[in-house]
Formats: sequence, C-alpha cells, structure tokens
Amino acid sequence: MTATADQALLPAGLQDLLPPAAAQEAGAVERLIEAFGAYGYDRVKPPLIEFEDALLAGAGAALGQQTFRLMDPVSQRMLGVRADMTTQVARIATSRLSRAPRPLRLCYGGQVLRVTGTQLRPERQFAQVGAELIGSESEHADAEALVMAVSGLTGLGAEGLTVDLNLPPLVAALAERLQIDGDTTQRLRQALDRKDAAAVDRLAGDQGTLFQGLLRAAGPADRALQNLAALDLPERVQREVDRLQHVVRLVQAALPELTLTVDPVEHRGFEYHQGVTFTIYARGVRGELGRGGRYTTDAAGGPAEPATGFTLFMDSVLRALPDPETPRRVYVPHAHAVEAARLRQAGWSALVGLLPEDDPVAEARRLDCTHLLMQGDVQPLDGL
Amino acid sequence: MTATADQALLPAGLQDLLPPAAAQEAGAVERLIEAFGAYGYDRVKPPLIEFEDALLAGAGAALGQQTFRLMDPVSQRMLGVRADMTTQVARIATSRLSRAPRPLRLCYGGQVLRVTGTQLRPERQFAQVGAELIGSESEHADAEALVMAVSGLTGLGAEGLTVDLNLPPLVAALAERLQIDGDTTQRLRQALDRKDAAAVDRLAGDQGTLFQGLLRAAGPADRALQNLAALDLPERVQREVDRLQHVVRLVQAALPELTLTVDPVEHRGFEYHQGVTFTIYARGVRGELGRGGRYTTDAAGGPAEPATGFTLFMDSVLRALPDPETPRRVYVPHAHAVEAARLRQAGWSALVGLLPEDDPVAEARRLDCTHLLMQGDVQPLDGL
Repeated sequence: MTATADQALLPAGLQDLLPPAAAQEAGAVERLIEAFGAYGYDRVKPPLIEFEDALLAGAGAALGQQTFRLMDPVSQRMLGVRADMTTQVARIATSRLSRAPRPLRLCYGGQVLRVTGTQLRPERQFAQVGAELIGSESEHADAEALVMAVSGLTGLGAEGLTVDLNLPPLVAALAERLQIDGDTTQRLRQALDRKDAAAVDRLAGDQGTLFQGLLRAAGPADRALQNLAALDLPERVQREVDRLQHVVRLVQAALPELTLTVDPVEHRGFEYHQGVTFTIYARGVRGELGRGGRYTTDAAGGPAEPATGFTLFMDSVLRALPDPETPRRVYVPHAHAVEAARLRQAGWSALVGLLPEDDPVAEARRLDCTHLLMQGDVQPLDGL
Repeated sequence: MTATADQALLPAGLQDLLPPAAAQEAGAVERLIEAFGAYGYDRVKPPLIEFEDALLAGAGAALGQQTFRLMDPVSQRMLGVRADMTTQVARIATSRLSRAPRPLRLCYGGQVLRVTGTQLRPERQFAQVGAELIGSESEHADAEALVMAVSGLTGLGAEGLTVDLNLPPLVAALAERLQIDGDTTQRLRQALDRKDAAAVDRLAGDQGTLFQGLLRAAGPADRALQNLAALDLPERVQREVDRLQHVVRLVQAALPELTLTVDPVEHRGFEYHQGVTFTIYARGVRGELGRGGRYTTDAAGGPAEPATGFTLFMDSVLRALPDPETPRRVYVPHAHAVEAARLRQAGWSALVGLLPEDDPVAEARRLDCTHLLMQGDVQPLDGL
C-alpha cells in the first residue's frame, strides 16, 4: 500500500502516531504533569464531550465554530466535543471543587478535537497539557504559571525557548480613559495588532504619540519596560504596566537565562484574557508551544474568580524536543520464558520468540532488537 | 451547589475525575503500557475519530449501535467517534505497519465513547488500555497476551484475579462436523450460553450427550480439561481443545497462583473471535477488568492475519486497586521561591504561598499540605 493510500484511510488533519512518536508524546505529557505536581498542582480529567452550552459558556464561546456537535440520544440534548480544556477545568473549579481551598491548583492532559485546522496547526486532534491557578490576583500567581510552563518544557529537553509577554487589556483601558469611542478602539486595536503606525496615528488623533509609544515599546523585556516607564500613562493603565513589570522581575529571578520579550499592544488570540498573557516559542519550531495568562472564571451560578493558567500544545512541543532514543530490547529465544521474566525484572524489554528459531541472531535482527540472550548473557547484536 | 446540581452539569454516564482519581487512572494507564513495553510491545496512538466505514469495518461492526457519528465538513463524510480501539490498532497493523516485521507487538491506551451505557458499565466514556500481537498462530502468543494482561494488573496492586477461558469457535465447529443446520446451531448456541440443558438436549437430538458433556465441562481449568479429554470429539474440534489445553499449561507455568476457569461453550461478547478467548475478573469487583483472545485482522486491501490481544477497562481496573496514598506536600511560605525550587529538585511537591501569611502552620493546613518548610527544614504538620 502506498503512503498516499495509507493517508487516505484517515480524514485530513487526523493521524495515527506510530512508534516511537506515540510513546514520546505520552511520556512528555506525563513528565509535564509530574513537573506541575511538584508545584502542588493536582490532576483533573474532564470528559471528552459535554453539554454544548456548558462547553461554550464564557471563554469557551470563542471556539464555537471549531467545536464538533453530537446529538445525545440519552439526554436528547446537543453535546459538544471539547476543542479546548481550559473552560472545562474552570467549570470543575467553580462547581465540584467550589469548596476546595483557594488558591486552587489544577492540571490536566488530554486530547482535543477541532472542526478545521489552521495554516499554522493543520492538526485537527492534538494533546493539550496545562494548569490553572484559580483564586489569586497576585503577580506571584502569574509568575508561577509562566515559570512552571517553561521549566516543564526545559525538563523535557526543549531548548531555545522564548516567551513573549502581552497586556491585552492595556489598549482598551487606555482608550476608555481617553474617551475614544468603541468603534475607533476596535479599529485602533487591529491597527496595533498589525503594527500599522500610520493607521494608529490617523485613528488616535491627539493621542497618537502615546499609542506610537506603546507600539515602539515592543522588544526585549528590559528595554520594553524602560520604554513603557517613559510614557505618561493614566493611573489605571500604569497599574497594568506595573503588574507586568512585577511579573517580569519575578520570572527573571526564577529563570535568569530565559529570553523574554514584551509586546504591550498584541491582542490576537487573547480576547478573553484580562491581565498579563504570554506565548511560548522555541527557536526554529513552527507554531507556538503554548500560551496562557490571566482571566476570570465565568462561573455558572458561583462567583467569578480571578485565575491564571496556560496550555501547552503537544504537537508543537514534540517538534521542539530531541528525537527519542531507540529503546534497548533483548531477543530471548523460544521456550526461555523464565529467563525473559528475569530480564524484565531487571528492567529490560525482553521479546520472546514464539516459535523455535534456527538462527537466533538473524531472528533478533529481523525483529529490530538491539540485544540477544545467548548462553545466559545479554549480548549487544552489534558485536555478533 | 448541591451534589445533584453538580451532576446535572454533565450528561448521564459522563463524569469529571477529580484528585486523586484522575492521577490514579493516568498513572495506572502508564504503568500498564510500561509493563507491556517490557514484553516488547510498542505504543501506537490512533485518532479519536475516523471515517465511519473504517471504524466499523470487520470486527468493529459489532459496535455500530454504540458509536457516535459526526458530519465532517472538511471531507464531507461521516465520521465515527471510536467506541473501541482494537479495530483501529488492527487497521494500523495492516496499513501503515504492513511492512513491519511479524509478529508485530503493539499496545495502546486511550479514551473511548459509547452512545449508551450498560447495566454493568453505566459509564459512556472510559479509558481502554490494551495490546495486540499480530501475525502469529502460536499458542505461545495466546499465552503471552494473557500472562501479560494479568501481570500488568498484578503489578498495579490488583488482587484476587481470576481468568475465565472460552473457546467460541467450538460449538460452530462441532455443529458443522455433525451437519447440524445453521438455524439450529444458532439456537443451540443460545441455549448453551444460558446453560439450558433441557433445550440443548431437545436441539442437539442424537448428539445431546456430546453437547451436555461440553456444558458440564465448565469449571476450574484442570477439571474442565479432564472432562473435555473424556469426550469423543471430531478431529478438527479436538484440535481446538488441544490448543486450549496448551494455552492453559503455558499460563499455569508462568502464573502458578492464578485462578483459571474454563467454560468451553460460552460465546457472548466474543462474536468475532476465532480461538481461545479470556475474561479477567477480580473478586468482589463489579464488571470485567478486561477481555481478549484470538481473532483475524480484517484488512482493507492487505492480507488478513492471525492475531491475539486484549483490552483492559480502566473504570473496572480502578475499582480493583487499593486507594491511592495521599501525596506528601510541603507548604513553603511566601517569598521563598528559591527554597521551593530546591525542594522540588529533591523530589518534593512544594506549594509556595502567593501572599504573605500571618500563620504559616494554619495556611499549610488550610491548603491540605502534609508538611511545612520551617527554619530551613521540612517538618510534618502532624507534629506542629
């Protein structure tokens, strides 16, 4: 069967992970969850499908177009297949864990499905791993989330990580303070997102200089914070900038080697965020490895809570990792089950011949083993 | 919010796994996959959704009623959400891994969804973990699958395991040899499944004694095999019984403590199986922990291959395991991030205060920590 025919067995954007990629992905997920556990984050596991209205409540609404729907014959209601897990974890925090002590630290790992892929991420199914810190407004919470995400990735062997920090509420807060109308604010935001200085000048009128200052502030974190400090910002806006600065200082203290950039006006993809946000990249790797930031849980019934968190996209994360090592595996000739059991106890992967073999060395090679059990000893096939 | 209101947030048969159950399930899945890796099984990961016709081909057809369907706007074709992973792994073996050396050892772990639950398993989503051994007809293959499944469960701490072995093709082979017509065979099979000796006599006519002998053979493995040996079976049928006996002997040699029973005529749930099958139970635990057995891959295009394998149902498996231990967790007072990092390096789960606390002991207790960092030392909260 040709590769093309093989591919046609699955819908576009969906794939089988084969050895060793499937093991690498699962191993990376578990090591990340373990790393988050070391910060006190407990794992939760929401279901793959939920009532559509619960799944798309609040921040989930942004993914409405990307969510597969199912008719549930049991409840006679529409269900959605999750396209993201953040809303689900927020739902758990504000319902079943509403009485758990705050701040609440939760983490998760699981598969999500999307109706269509994007140019940067054609995959329609991928694994998400993330964490949410619910019930704290402290800058220490923002910094903890970011440091934990980056440390988790570094622990997997990812190199060349950079983090871009943004402040999505900044433009809206400034426009409101300057009494710029909603329609103009919207267009201003778009102009800032595409770094169109001329349009920003045209739209901002008298305040053009201030918005140009924000636009020019983007860059390496220290210089960006200096540039922001030089601007004469209204008090409420200055408070947001002070928070950003505090978070940057905490992250720099914990991870002095990390490359941090700041783009204070970037807004795309952070429509529901309400404070410092961040995106993680790895040099030379297509797509973002993860993103996160501050938001407010949109509780059905319960009080809304301040929260921060992040999601890592495992397809991108795997592209940033070194290739997995070929596992060592010993071929154990037929009818030596007892020896195989002993080798497994000793930590070996031991594959037993199911039929008598004439040439154990050839059989071990044929089965992609690296070692052979010969005369009671494990011997590397290389030397035979 | 009341427990009932919480439950109503999710459709019947779907649930959130909370701490510590979510971590326990994921940990058990990974330890099983690791145990299978020690036998030389490599992990694969098929997608959650596939073209309906691929998912329901061959053995998959049995789950057609239990499979959620989705319309795919990209391919304009119907997709199914997997209700089982065995067919998917067989598809991978016969397509993308068609040129990998045989026997091919694959394992997997993932979530499946079913349209309705059953009385024994009301859950509509559960995790499956399993393994498939493709391309071998040897009894050693059947035994390897069974031994590996049981050893994996024992390794998790499951106790009181029993395995019931069946031989689903036996009745059909016997009926064919005795020239019993198809309709009568069908009714005979149902009568045997419900252990209805009178109906068996009525349907089997002259051969009533033989079928009664099969019915009475059920019981502890050694006695059942003796009873079967005493029957005067046609040669082809005897070969099936010889295979069963060989498998039992191999399993007994590997796991002498395991309780094995044999019911040669049991057929329910094994409609697509073609040799020795088995079901794993744990004393006092509702539902089967897993099942497996011999089948033939139903390849789209490629040659069909002899195969054996098994699936474990993680909801039942978790019911058979001891409760997870409460994790040790140390509370690190505010602004001691460096000490927290050091404790994490040393293997601790270290939770840092996000705000200055007046009473670190009280704060550590409030956050369900077991230990507190005090004057540079980790101290158990019990003693404070």
